[in-house]
Parts: sequence; structure tokens; C-alpha cells
Amino acid sequence: MKIKIILPVISDIFNAEVVREAGQFISPDTEIEVQNLDKGTASIESVYDEVLGSPDIVSKVIQAEKDGFDAVFVDCFGDPGVEAAREMVSIPVVGGFQPAALLACMIAGSWSVVSVLSSVVPMIRNLARKLGVESNVASIRHINTPVLELTDKDMLKDKLMEQIVIAHRTDGAEAIVLGCTGMMGLAKTLEETASGLGIPIPVVDPTGAALGFLEMQVRNRISSSKISYPVPSEKERII
Amino acid sequence: MKIKIILPVISDIFNAEVVREAGQFISPDTEIEVQNLDKGTASIESVYDEVLGSPDIVSKVIQAEKDGFDAVFVDCFGDPGVEAAREMVSIPVVGGFQPAALLACMIAGSWSVVSVLSSVVPMIRNLARKLGVESNVASIRHINTPVLELTDKDMLKDKLMEQIVIAHRTDGAEAIVLGCTGMMGLAKTLEETASGLGIPIPVVDPTGAALGFLEMQVRNRISSSKISYPVPSEKERII
Amino acid sequence: MKIKIILPVISDIFNAEVVREAGQFISPDTEIEVQNLDKGTASIESVYDEVLGSPDIVSKVIQAEKDGFDAVFVDCFGDPGVEAAREMVSIPVVGGFQPAALLACMIAGSWSVVSVLSSVVPMIRNLARKLGVESNVASIRHINTPVLELTDKDMLKDKLMEQIVIAHRTDGAEAIVLGCTGMMGLAKTLEETASGLGIPIPVVDPTGAALGFLEMQVRNRISSSKISYPVPSEKERII
Amino acid sequence: MKIKIILPVISDIFNAEVVREAGQFISPDTEIEVQNLDKGTASIESVYDEVLGSPDIVSKVIQAEKDGFDAVFVDCFGDPGVEAAREMVSIPVVGGFQPAALLACMIAGSWSVVSVLSSVVPMIRNLARKLGVESNVASIRHINTPVLELTDKDMLKDKLMEQIVIAHRTDGAEAIVLGCTGMMGLAKTLEETASGLGIPIPVVDPTGAALGFLEMQVRNRISSSKISYPVPSEKERII
Amino acid sequence: MKIKIILPVISDIFNAEVVREAGQFISPDTEIEVQNLDKGTASIESVYDEVLGSPDIVSKVIQAEKDGFDAVFVDCFGDPGVEAAREMVSIPVVGGFQPAALLACMIAGSWSVVSVLSSVVPMIRNLARKLGVESNVASIRHINTPVLELTDKDMLKDKLMEQIVIAHRTDGAEAIVLGCTGMMGLAKTLEETASGLGIPIPVVDPTGAALGFLEMQVRNRISSSKISYPVPSEKERII
Amino acid sequence: MKIKIILPVISDIFNAEVVREAGQFISPDTEIEVQNLDKGTASIESVYDEVLGSPDIVSKVIQAEKDGFDAVFVDCFGDPGVEAAREMVSIPVVGGFQPAALLACMIAGSWSVVSVLSSVVPMIRNLARKLGVESNVASIRHINTPVLELTDKDMLKDKLMEQIVIAHRTDGAEAIVLGCTGMMGLAKTLEETASGLGIPIPVVDPTGAALGFLEMQVRNRISSSKISYPVPSEKERII
Repeated sequence: MKIKIILPVISDIFNAEVVREAGQFISPDTEIEVQNLDKGTASIESVYDEVLGSPDIVSKVIQAEKDGFDAVFVDCFGDPGVEAAREMVSIPVVGGFQPAALLACMIAGSWSVVSVLSSVVPMIRNLARKLGVESNVASIRHINTPVLELTDKDMLKDKLMEQIVIAHRTDGAEAIVLGCTGMMGLAKTLEETASGLGIPIPVVDPTGAALGFLEMQVRNRISSSKISYPVPSEKERII
Repeated sequence: MKIKIILPVISDIFNAEVVREAGQFISPDTEIEVQNLDKGTASIESVYDEVLGSPDIVSKVIQAEKDGFDAVFVDCFGDPGVEAAREMVSIPVVGGFQPAALLACMIAGSWSVVSVLSSVVPMIRNLARKLGVESNVASIRHINTPVLELTDKDMLKDKLMEQIVIAHRTDGAEAIVLGCTGMMGLAKTLEETASGLGIPIPVVDPTGAALGFLEMQVRNRISSSKISYPVPSEKERII
Repeated sequence: MKIKIILPVISDIFNAEVVREAGQFISPDTEIEVQNLDKGTASIESVYDEVLGSPDIVSKVIQAEKDGFDAVFVDCFGDPGVEAAREMVSIPVVGGFQPAALLACMIAGSWSVVSVLSSVVPMIRNLARKLGVESNVASIRHINTPVLELTDKDMLKDKLMEQIVIAHRTDGAEAIVLGCTGMMGLAKTLEETASGLGIPIPVVDPTGAALGFLEMQVRNRISSSKISYPVPSEKERII
Repeated sequence: MKIKIILPVISDIFNAEVVREAGQFISPDTEIEVQNLDKGTASIESVYDEVLGSPDIVSKVIQAEKDGFDAVFVDCFGDPGVEAAREMVSIPVVGGFQPAALLACMIAGSWSVVSVLSSVVPMIRNLARKLGVESNVASIRHINTPVLELTDKDMLKDKLMEQIVIAHRTDGAEAIVLGCTGMMGLAKTLEETASGLGIPIPVVDPTGAALGFLEMQVRNRISSSKISYPVPSEKERII
Repeated sequence: MKIKIILPVISDIFNAEVVREAGQFISPDTEIEVQNLDKGTASIESVYDEVLGSPDIVSKVIQAEKDGFDAVFVDCFGDPGVEAAREMVSIPVVGGFQPAALLACMIAGSWSVVSVLSSVVPMIRNLARKLGVESNVASIRHINTPVLELTDKDMLKDKLMEQIVIAHRTDGAEAIVLGCTGMMGLAKTLEETASGLGIPIPVVDPTGAALGFLEMQVRNRISSSKISYPVPSEKERII
Repeated sequence: MKIKIILPVISDIFNAEVVREAGQFISPDTEIEVQNLDKGTASIESVYDEVLGSPDIVSKVIQAEKDGFDAVFVDCFGDPGVEAAREMVSIPVVGGFQPAALLACMIAGSWSVVSVLSSVVPMIRNLARKLGVESNVASIRHINTPVLELTDKDMLKDKLMEQIVIAHRTDGAEAIVLGCTGMMGLAKTLEETASGLGIPIPVVDPTGAALGFLEMQVRNRISSSKISYPVPSEKERII
């Protein structure tokens, strides 16, 4: 199958890493292709950033379906444009939050998100409420670091580890969801470090969860409900 | 005080009625002014429509603050662009859903929404979940009529009345929220008709609730929390 | 419009301050008048105090409607007698809790109450549950100070500030509701002090919220649902 | 042990039946005594009725403790005055709702209340919310019959049976709670009739549940939490 | 009445203490008899332990009904085998969790469990969710001590006290449920010690709650709903 | 990867169909192998049936891990033995309910289960509560047909279709979960028939969801949290 990854920012600096990381999660017969936005923002850390990027996200999802892709991953934890895109296409579309949250629900009855900045905490809380899984969320924590500064992997690992320990010991988290799709390549290392501290806590990488869900949906030939996400009616639209 | 009403569609055909209707809900020292979008859609009945209109909604809210308005009502029941706009300005901003829902919570412990089309039911459910008031919602019903066909007031009243009766008798609704800001000028008539049927059910007009909330917020000098809606950080943005 | 404020205690020592404070929240065409109880308690800090005051609260609300008032504010955060009063009159009646809680829901998705004594914490939790907004409550805190000792405004401010900081940092509150209508005249000062600490948290004054809701309800000509609060049937009653 | 039953109305016409009915639920070493109110109403069907009766209910509970009773049953499904009474005494105090609701939670994961009039439906919903068991409530139904007309047992049984069948078939109830303590002596008959219809649904009699809870509490020497129901502080009170 | 206590472990070392402890909670006309398992485990601290013991628990409950017992207490806080046993018999069957949880709901709006090991925390959370009372649970704490080491009563009391204080001060617990039926004979001592620290918190002993519920159910002649726990159909079964 | 399917009944009559059906959902590099129980029941329609089968389910999961399988699907919608098995092994283990429920949450905000008999409705409700997704469940319906009579595919399809239509029209379901893993090979046909009725509702086949989740978990190298499902401690066990 062919999965399109829309990395919904206006720069391609993360693309190579995304391709490399995504590769480890897919099955042998799956191909992936990464694409960025023409209009949008350098990173997504506010609802405002989501609003600016969403129109182009939706049009690129529409194009992906036309180009024969079987599914689309909008590669951002805030699920920007995902609901609108589901209305406009028939193929499965997921963002970063919902697959990671649902996988976390499978492996633990109480889990925490560790994300980038305090500004995204209310956004993630809203996503959890909309998905109806809020009672499973132990806490939503952050490392006080903007997306564009996630490149220092050692510092990133340390900051995440600190929050993971607090999430477990103070908030009762039994699993962790990395709350930004830019936190790539760290889930297994974090699990090992936590295990060394006597905390056998699984860490969900949202990229892996998203690709896993899309593969599941394609093999089940099941897409978003057209009752939940109906095709928009014809009308005048000025874009 | 000066309240800007952004009617977030690309046509001005509803503007005169909005001004007339809004006038009855405001206090003597309040002025209102209505504005439409340059980019967006003829009506809003899908998340896709919201995505297309939101960037211009946000920029018009920003402009309203610059122009000295004390508060902004984004005159659509789906609250499009409201969260992003709150991030970008300091003045109070509300859409149609939240004020009506919260007023309904004040007057009844169980209330129903009656909206336009089945396509907006999942959107309204998500709004109720995000606001944390879902346990008060008896049902979300619709009259199977697009926004642009709401102009036949007699037919509209009959269809609404039919759903109101079902909402009360079958779903246990103790109050009704009109689920589209285009359903203007009918709340009191509907209350009277229902009362004649032995159903003393109050009907919330979202326009009146929105203006009431904005007046309350301005007089209380209290706006959206900047912790919930923080100012977006500086970054490259291509619009 | 004319709003009656029933300050449901047997003393009038707070009346002047209530009139002064209330004045800042009302619109130009609103008049207020304050009244106390003949039977009741010196302050309200228990359900027992509420039970003792409620019969007289209800009879004074009934009288207010007869006297031509458009709405009544029962000026106590515990909403004593409010439900019974709504059954007995047609005009809008609110207490201190519900308006403040609903305004807090508008401005933030997670908020805390800071009240007077540990004894009122279970009472406030019950109010939040009945209103159906419990999932938005981050915490219910108190300053361990009886109502009748709230007069030392400097001490009061310091104690409130301490709990506000904990409510934000530990409980994740994004807005604050002052949990006693006796905590007058402090909301803006508290906001400024918190802001100076880097916490841009709005503080809801329940008096302002109550008056705002009543004005909204009067201008919307919408009162409590007579399905939720039906007129009690005729029967023998010995008072 | 000695249990005081306060039947919180101003008439004693139900007392003999209450004594007879209560007798079947108590253990051999339990004595009961019934008492009415001096001030209050002929029946309780509104919050207003509760407000009028509560002061005398509380003073009679206080007297019962002084007279050496081990526990008090406030014999009304609305639990009037119960919270205030718990603040004022050390012995266990229950009304009709909470014991019946909690016993229903034990025997079924989804249960319905069938009560007297539509006016008490919002009151019972609030009781369920305060108790934190609302998710177990399938529905709250009524037989449209005032308390003082419950004396025709045949008609009463038929009306209850009708609602029980609907509660099971339409609302999914797996157990029934009789929603008025005046519906005495019918639970077993209703169970048998339902069973004959192929519906093996248990019916909780609130009187039996209340006495059972009080016996349990007395034998466990456990009363209401004094953190949840603290002793009211000394202050001026005019009754 | 005759109550069978099935202590669902393969050893009888706790039996004498169980009989002695249970004796203080029952009414004069109640007899109890304790029985252990033939197949099962030495203690129950995992779902695996529950799975191994449940078949024999169910067969012993079936035998108890045949032997004329009026009710059965499966004496373990995890309620092992209880649901299946309810399907197979007509008499009331309870475990340790549900009665204690429901009694706690009666005496306080927010309560904590203090159990033995971290391994049982997710199990108890699931029990609370299934019972629909999760919103009343302040926290689920543990003393990090296996069941078979609960015999040192002094150490046990100290560890419980430590967690009770944290549960109250940090988590807001207003009552405590001892989260293992092996924590016998300590509830009143713990209450007194807590009271000496200024924390008037009631402590629920699950054994007393279970026996109280069974007595209530027997005197009310009410058992588990056969709609919730239907008789299993005939089919081939290899045990 | 190698996935073991444990069909937890004592007969192998469904095995061939399971292998055939499962084959369509797996990726090219996945192998499956089906196994039955030595001790257990002919079908699973009660908690009693689950209790009888669970010990052997767990031992077969343990053996599967020893035999080098990467993951195990316990092929029954009631998830029998799954929690205990997760404690005993390190590889991912799922039953039929959780994967289907979580996939349904991804594709729709409100979904219904259609299962076999009324007896399993309370069991499925408990599973939904434990998973924390109950607010997304529109209803749990059944076709009043035992598992062993599911073989008549035409009758089965008709009965399912009837309940699907009611689930959508009456309960507001936007997606359907087939509530028995024995309902194989019908999901796509049901979707098409519903679509012909104007109901574009997706139908989740629990077998496909389970295999999809296991593939996702294996490719993500993430198993159940060992904090949620800790390894049981050593102790005496008589099986």
C-alpha cells in the first residue's frame, strides 16, 4: 500500500528523518512519501498555526487520494485539518494524536502525554475530550521546549525522561505518549532508561501508532464514517 | 461598548436581519457593527467550511481589536476560528455555541440542540465535549434543512417545533438551544407555541446569548484565559 | 431593569460594600437594591446555615417579583434557596456559584475555586456536580478563613494569592473563581499580582458574573425552565 | 438498636403503614419509632416543599440523637435535610434516595427510578449526580400521580408496572428503584408480575434499603464523614 | 440467616481471624461459616491469581446455595469469581470491593482506597469503573506490602496511617476504604489515630461492609438482577 | 511475524473459517496459527463460560510466547483471560473487544455494538467502562441468537442489518462494531446493504481490528504496560 505523509509545515528540514523513522514501523509492502505545505507555518504550536495550515493540508490530502495513495498521515500531534480532510476524501486519514491515544488505551488504563510547550496542553486536552478518552489521561505534561529546538536529542531525552518519571510517580501514568511527532527516534531509548530506574513504562511514538492505524484501516478496508464526516454540500466557496 | 459581529460567510444577505435581531438583546450603551468575510464560504455546514473561513475570521478579529472594538461575536454556531482568535487578541471573543450552551446550563439541567442538518450533529457533539458540558445534553437534533433555506420562516418554525416536541417528550429536554445562528427571530414564538402544547420549555437564541456573554465579559473586564489561549510565538508563517 | 440583591444573612454590615461593588458591573439602565434576611444566620458556611436561611430567602424572592423586580441575585456562593425560589417565581434567579462557574467555563477549560473554609469544599463539589461541569474543575481550594474575617483585605489578598499560585502550578488551573461572594473588590488586584508572577490567570468575581447573567437573561427574556423548576402544587403547608 | 424514622410531613396518616412495612426489613434486635414534622408540608414534591420542611427535620434529627437513637431514617426519597442533619449529629442519617441508589448499583449496572410526578425528575437527577452514580441510571420515569393519591394500591401497581416495562425494554434498565417512599408494600408484587412477563427485574423498596444501610452503619460503627459533613461553627442564628 | 464466607485462598491460616472479625458485624440471628478453596493460590494479588481461583470459587458458591446458605461473601477485595457466581445462583453474592465502595459513597463524596501492592492498583481502578463510581475515588494508594506479610499488625497500622494521611491531605479523601480484606481489625484504631492528628476520617472495613450488604439484601429479599447476571445457557463444558 | 490465534472454545469447528477470514487482514510477512482449548466451553456467552476457559487460555498464551509467537489474539469478543495473560507474558495479547472498540473510536465519535444475546450486553458494557470509552458507545444491541447458531449466514445478515438500522436511526450510531468474533465475513456485505438504505455506516469486524492492532504493536515493538499488568509474584498455586 502507499501512504502519504503530510508533514504540515512549510520547511522540509525534518523530511529525511521522518522517512527514516517511518520506515521502521511499516510492513514490507508499504511505501511512504513525505510532502510539506506551500502555505502554513514553520512549526505548529498554537490553534492559530493550525488554522493557517489547515486549508493547504486539506487540499494536499485531496490530491493524495487523487494520486492513488491508500491513506494519509498528517504528521502533527494536533491533528490539524484531519476532520475536514476526512469529509473530503474516502481514504483513511489520521493525525498524530488519535492513533497514539488509542494505542495507549490498549496498553494501559492510565497514561500521560509529554509534549513540547505549555501552550499545547489545552489543545491536547481538547483532543482527548473530543476522542472521548479523557478518563484514561493521567496528565498532560510538557518539556518547555519549542518544536524547532527538538533537534538536540540528548537534551531532549533528558527533559522527556524527567517528565516521564514525574508522570509515573506523581500522576500515576502507566504508559507515556510522546506529545509531538517531532520527538522521533527516542521511544525505545526512553523505555530502556525508565526501565533502568525501575519504571517499566511503555512509550508510544505517535508516528508508529499512526502508520500502524493506517495499515490496519487499509487492510480492514475501513475508513472514517461518512456519517461522522459527511461529504460537504456544494456551495459557493472563495479560497 | 462596541461589539463587532463577524458573520463568517462571503455574502451580506443576512446582515440586515442580524443587526435588527441583535439590537433587541443589547444594553443602551452598546453599539454593534456587522462584517462578512472576503474569503470563505456561502454558509458553514461542515468542518471543511470552517477550515476555509477560519484564517479570514481570525484576521478580522485582529482588525476589530485594532479598530477599538471591545468584544467580537463570530456569528456562527460552530464557533469557527474562535479558539485561534482568542490566542491573537486580548478582547473577549465568542462564537454561537458556547454562550448558548452555558446559558442553557443555567436555566435547565438537561437541554437539546436543534440544528440544521445531520452533517453538523457530530460537530456540535464535539463542541459540547470540548466545553465539558456533554452530560447536560439530552440530544442533538436537526430539521434536515440547509442554512441557505432557513429563510422560509413559517416552514422553519414548523420544523423546529416538531423537533422541539420530540426533544422534550422522547429525549427529556427541559430547554432548547437553536443550533444555528441563522435561526433568528423565532425563539419567543417557539416558546409560545410549545407552551400552548403544555410544554413550558425555554428556547435559547444563540445570538442573544452571545451578546449577553460579551456584555458580561466587558463589564467584568474579563477575557479568555491567556493560559488556555496563549499568544502564539513568533515564527515564519506563509499565508 | 431592576435587580434585587438578597444578601442572605441577618446582618446588613456588608450591604454598603455590595452596592458599591455591584455598581461597577451593571449597565447604565440597571438599578439594584440590597436586602437581608429576617430569619437566618450571620454567615453561610454549612448546609445547616443554608437550611436555616432558605425559607426566608424564598419568601423574599417571591416578594421581589411582586415588587416588580426583573431578576434576583441571591448573593451567596452556595446558591442557597435558589432552586426553590426558581419554582416559586417567573423571573430569573441566580446565586453566586452557577454564574461564576459558567463564566469560568467560557474563558478556560480548567479552573479552580478558592473559597473560605474546608467545610465548604464538599458543598462546592456538589454544586459543580449538579451543574454538570465537574470535569472542568481543576481543584476546590480554601484559605482557611471564616466569612466574617474576610474584612482584612490585605491578609485576604495574600491568602488568596497563595492558593491561586498553587491552583495554577499544582492543579493546572487556567482560571480562578473566587469561592465566596464576600471576597469583593479583589479580582483585578489578584489578576495583576498573578500576572507579575508570570501567571496570566483571569479571576472571576462571582458578583459580577451573577449580575452579568441576570442582565443577559432579562435582555433575552429567558428565565429558568419551568420543566426543571415547576410551580409547586397546592397543598397544606405549615410554615 | 433503635432507629428513628422521621416521616417529614405534617400529617400522621402514613405512620401506621410505615411501621408495618419497616418491620419486615429490620433485624430482631432493632426497634423503630416514627415521628412527623410540626412545621412543613403535607407531602414533598418540590424543592420548595423540601426547603419548608428541612429546618424541622434537622431539629428532629438532633433530638433523636439526644434521645439515644442509634440512627435516623428521613423517610422521603428526596433526602430533604439529610446533609444538614449529618453536620449536626454523630449518628448515621440517611434519606430514601442514597440507600436505594447504592443498593441498586450493587445488584445491577444499569437501573431506572420510577417516581411520582414529572416535577421530581430534575430533583432525582440532581441527587444521582451528587452521589456520583449518574452513569448507572438508565432513566428516571414517573407515573404522573401525586404522593397523596398513592393510596389506591391497585392503580398504583398498574401504573408502576407500565413504567417498569418501558424502563426495561426502552431504556435498558436491569433493576428498578421505586422513587417515592410512599410506594410501600409493592416491590415484591411488582417483581412477580414483571417476572410473569419474562422480565426478571429486581425492584428496590427505598424503605428497606434505608433501614438496611442504617443497620450496616450501626454494626460497622461508621457514620458520615465529618470531613464531608463538618460540625457547623458557632455563630448568630435567628430561627 | 446463614452466610457462607468463602476465603478464596488455598490455606486456612486466616480463617480463625475472619470468624472472629466477622462476628462483630453481624446481627444476632446471623450465622457465618468460613471455607477455603481446593484449587487456587495462597493469596490474590494479580488477575492471574483471580483466574486460577475463580472456577473453584464459583463451584463453592453453587454448593453454598445447595447447602441452604442465604448469602455468600467471597472474602477478597478483588471480587474474584463474583460475577460468574451471581449468574449461577439465586442468593446474594458479594466480594470485598463493591460493598465497601458503596458504603464509602454513602458516607463521603470523595474517598480513597489503601491497598497492599502497586500491582492491585489497576485492578481496583477497573472495579471502580465497572461499578460506575470512579468519579468518587480520590486516589488508590498502597502500602507496598504483600498480603502474606500483613500479619505484623503494628507495622501494618503505621504503613496504613501514612497513606491515609497522604490520601486526605494530598488527594482530598474524605473517607478511606481498606483495600484488602486481610487488613482486619484495624479500621477503628486507624480512625482514632487519624482523629488524633485532626483528621476525622472514617475507615471502611470491607468485611463489615460486605456482611452488612448481605444482611440488607437478605432482609430485603433482593438478589443480583437476573438481567445483569443471567443464568448461563446449557452447553458442553469441560472443566 | 507469527501471530497465534487462540479460539477459546473446546471445539475446532470454526478454525478453518477463522484461518480463511484472518488471512485477508494480515500483511504479507505475517503467519497465523489457530489453536483451541482443552478445558473450557463450547461457546462463550456468560462470565461463567469465561471463568471456566480462562485458566487454559492463559496457559496457552504462555506456551505461545515460549513457542516464539510474536503476539496472541484471544479470539472472543469478551476478552476472556486477556488481562491475566498480559501479566504472564511479554508479547502483545488482545481479545476481540478492545481492538474493535478502539478502531471504532478512530472512525466515529459514536458507535454501537451488535452482539449475540441479551446475556452479553452487561458484559460488553463492563468492557467499555473498563476501557474508558463508554461515552462513545451509542448502544449495545443484540440479535437474540446464540453463538452456535451463527452459521446460517443469510439469517445472520438479516438480523444484524435490522439492528444496525435501529442503532443508527434510534441510537445515533455512526459506526457499528460486530459484537462477536463468530460474526465472520459479513462486515463488508453489511456496509453495502446499509449504504443501499442511505446509511453510509462502517462496520468493524473484530477479527480484522485485533490482527491490525497486533501487527501495529509488533512493528512498534510495544506491548502491554508492565505497570498495568505486572508479573505476578511467586507463591503457592494449586491448579
